[in-house]
Amino acid sequence: MGVFQVELKRVVDDSYEIEIGFGLEEKLLTDLQNGLLGNRKKLALITDSNVKSLYGDKLREMLLAAGFQAELFVFEAGERQKTRETQARLEDEMLAAGCRRDCGVIAVGGGVVTDLAGFLAGTFARGVPFVNYATTLLSAADASVGGKTAVDTPLATNLIGLFNQPKKVYLDVNAWKTLPKRQISSGLAETIKHACIARPGFFAYLEEHMEALLACDPAACAYIAEENCRIKYQVVMQDERESGLREVLNLGHTVGRAIETVSGYGLLHGEAVSIGLAAQALLAERLGFLTAEERHRLLALLEKAGLPTAIPPKIDREALVQKLYTDKKVRDGRLRCVVQKGLGNVVEFSPGVFSTPVEEQTAREMIFSLP
Amino acid sequence: MGVFQVELKRVVDDSYEIEIGFGLEEKLLTDLQNGLLGNRKKLALITDSNVKSLYGDKLREMLLAAGFQAELFVFEAGERQKTRETQARLEDEMLAAGCRRDCGVIAVGGGVVTDLAGFLAGTFARGVPFVNYATTLLSAADASVGGKTAVDTPLATNLIGLFNQPKKVYLDVNAWKTLPKRQISSGLAETIKHACIARPGFFAYLEEHMEALLACDPAACAYIAEENCRIKYQVVMQDERESGLREVLNLGHTVGRAIETVSGYGLLHGEAVSIGLAAQALLAERLGFLTAEERHRLLALLEKAGLPTAIPPKIDREALVQKLYTDKKVRDGRLRCVVQKGLGNVVEFSPGVFSTPVEEQTAREMIFSLP
Repeated sequence: MGVFQVELKRVVDDSYEIEIGFGLEEKLLTDLQNGLLGNRKKLALITDSNVKSLYGDKLREMLLAAGFQAELFVFEAGERQKTRETQARLEDEMLAAGCRRDCGVIAVGGGVVTDLAGFLAGTFARGVPFVNYATTLLSAADASVGGKTAVDTPLATNLIGLFNQPKKVYLDVNAWKTLPKRQISSGLAETIKHACIARPGFFAYLEEHMEALLACDPAACAYIAEENCRIKYQVVMQDERESGLREVLNLGHTVGRAIETVSGYGLLHGEAVSIGLAAQALLAERLGFLTAEERHRLLALLEKAGLPTAIPPKIDREALVQKLYTDKKVRDGRLRCVVQKGLGNVVEFSPGVFSTPVEEQTAREMIFSLP
Repeated sequence: MGVFQVELKRVVDDSYEIEIGFGLEEKLLTDLQNGLLGNRKKLALITDSNVKSLYGDKLREMLLAAGFQAELFVFEAGERQKTRETQARLEDEMLAAGCRRDCGVIAVGGGVVTDLAGFLAGTFARGVPFVNYATTLLSAADASVGGKTAVDTPLATNLIGLFNQPKKVYLDVNAWKTLPKRQISSGLAETIKHACIARPGFFAYLEEHMEALLACDPAACAYIAEENCRIKYQVVMQDERESGLREVLNLGHTVGRAIETVSGYGLLHGEAVSIGLAAQALLAERLGFLTAEERHRLLALLEKAGLPTAIPPKIDREALVQKLYTDKKVRDGRLRCVVQKGLGNVVEFSPGVFSTPVEEQTAREMIFSLP
């Protein structure tokens, strides 16, 4: 019978700024007063139990003093909490506190907070605007560009989520000093990944400045914050919907994510990625994309950053192989795995080369060859 | 320090077709074979326990026979199941069945199924494409245009969700014959709402053809399916993000949704909307937008359709008033309520008039004045 045509073509502008600096609380306030979230007065600050006392409380005080209705919504820190259940609890608390479509969300914390809060904002009342106030190196490296938000489920990490762009991102480098050393090392894994993806000069910079970074030297930290944004942006801009090039950002993440899950999140994200980088380097060397010397330089840099490059003894390697083959990158039973070509060269791969299908037997050999 | 500009301006084309007909299974298959969902072979059919045996099983058989990998994911029928928990369970089942970003979703059923499945598809692997195979009058009237998808939470209906457009909608008018009489009446409530919104001629058509519609006369059913799409589309097209005009579609829904929740979903959606239409008509008469005679014509039409116009005795009216003031339309403590102006005139209201702020005392009087 009849066919009814629904025409829905439109221009979407999701552009936003990333501001990098030392102590950006006042800047956030000024931006909100200048209409960053329209004239929304009701603000839901989402943070975790670690960041609450460091930043959450004082941001709330500041916003209340300026006449905003600001409420804190807090969940227990840790990747383990990045779940649908945490999200549902926060949604219910926000609804009970009177938040509706006229509220705005401010995510305050690291990647777990910005992933979860960005996803929540995207579906709360079918979408309210949000900003990220990022307090970790990891979120500077990973969560500030790309719009990926998600939660984890028992069967897979980051598989339920949205592409949802923030209205602005604040990278407060001051906050890095508040991080435990282990968290700083973890954050450096994504930075090292970016160095592997991009120009070799950045890799050399990290080799030279690793001590300064671990000591939170302001200039070095600010430099890598910007460099992380630039590299990730270059990749993401060329491929906003992850159909091809963007896959290079998964360098080290295929094995990394599997380790994260199999370990029951006993490892930090960056620690798992570090082992994943070591794993793909083995594969890259075998495929002739990386020399043994280059692979050892990579391992040395990861170790200098305080990161693991061996699979912890408690992890069942066979379970890890099984887990790999439930990855969302599995297509027709073959795992797509990004490998690097030299130090700082992944983006130069032509499509179809940077991401290589891996049979289960090859993956098993790789996993069992790792220290 | 530095500001980094992320440019993300792009053209999005979410256009799609609504096909109206009698038995559209083969058409769906042909469309899929012609690349409606790209070259996706893995299809997740989401349906409820009522529709499974009527349509779900046979669609799956048909798709399997044509070489697709089609799997059924079923939840118990009823608005009560349109929850985050049902969604999470379906997600886990799909993940366990190997669905990843390369799958497509086919929602088969009424508004509850299409709301839930459309939302699920929008966040599964950060978004997979979906089509709606709509089997009820209600979904023809309500769920086929607009892209609204959502689940309910204990504190509010439809507050967690997405704007997510299907790749195509099939309105199978044959399926209406399988509906219990009460479901058909329920579906007619949204149709009557559309008649109140649009031109008076459609209201008169419904007055004349109500018996034919209740008897599922094919010509009458097909006519109202198209008319529903046309009216809803005219409104939605002018206001894709519900900033203004689209509010007219909430006619009868402010009170309707509250009744639905307070009744513990003992009422069907259309039944609750019918009472909501009666409620706003009282308000419209008081505000001088509707004559007493027009209000009685509306009540007569609702009753002819087998719909309730009085608040059931078991519902606590004071609880209903409280519930109204947790509605997502509450801004600064005042409830925004759409009222009609004559029979078939709401869309002619100028912005700011069609949606009127209502104080709690006025709402209480309205609720307690209803039979």
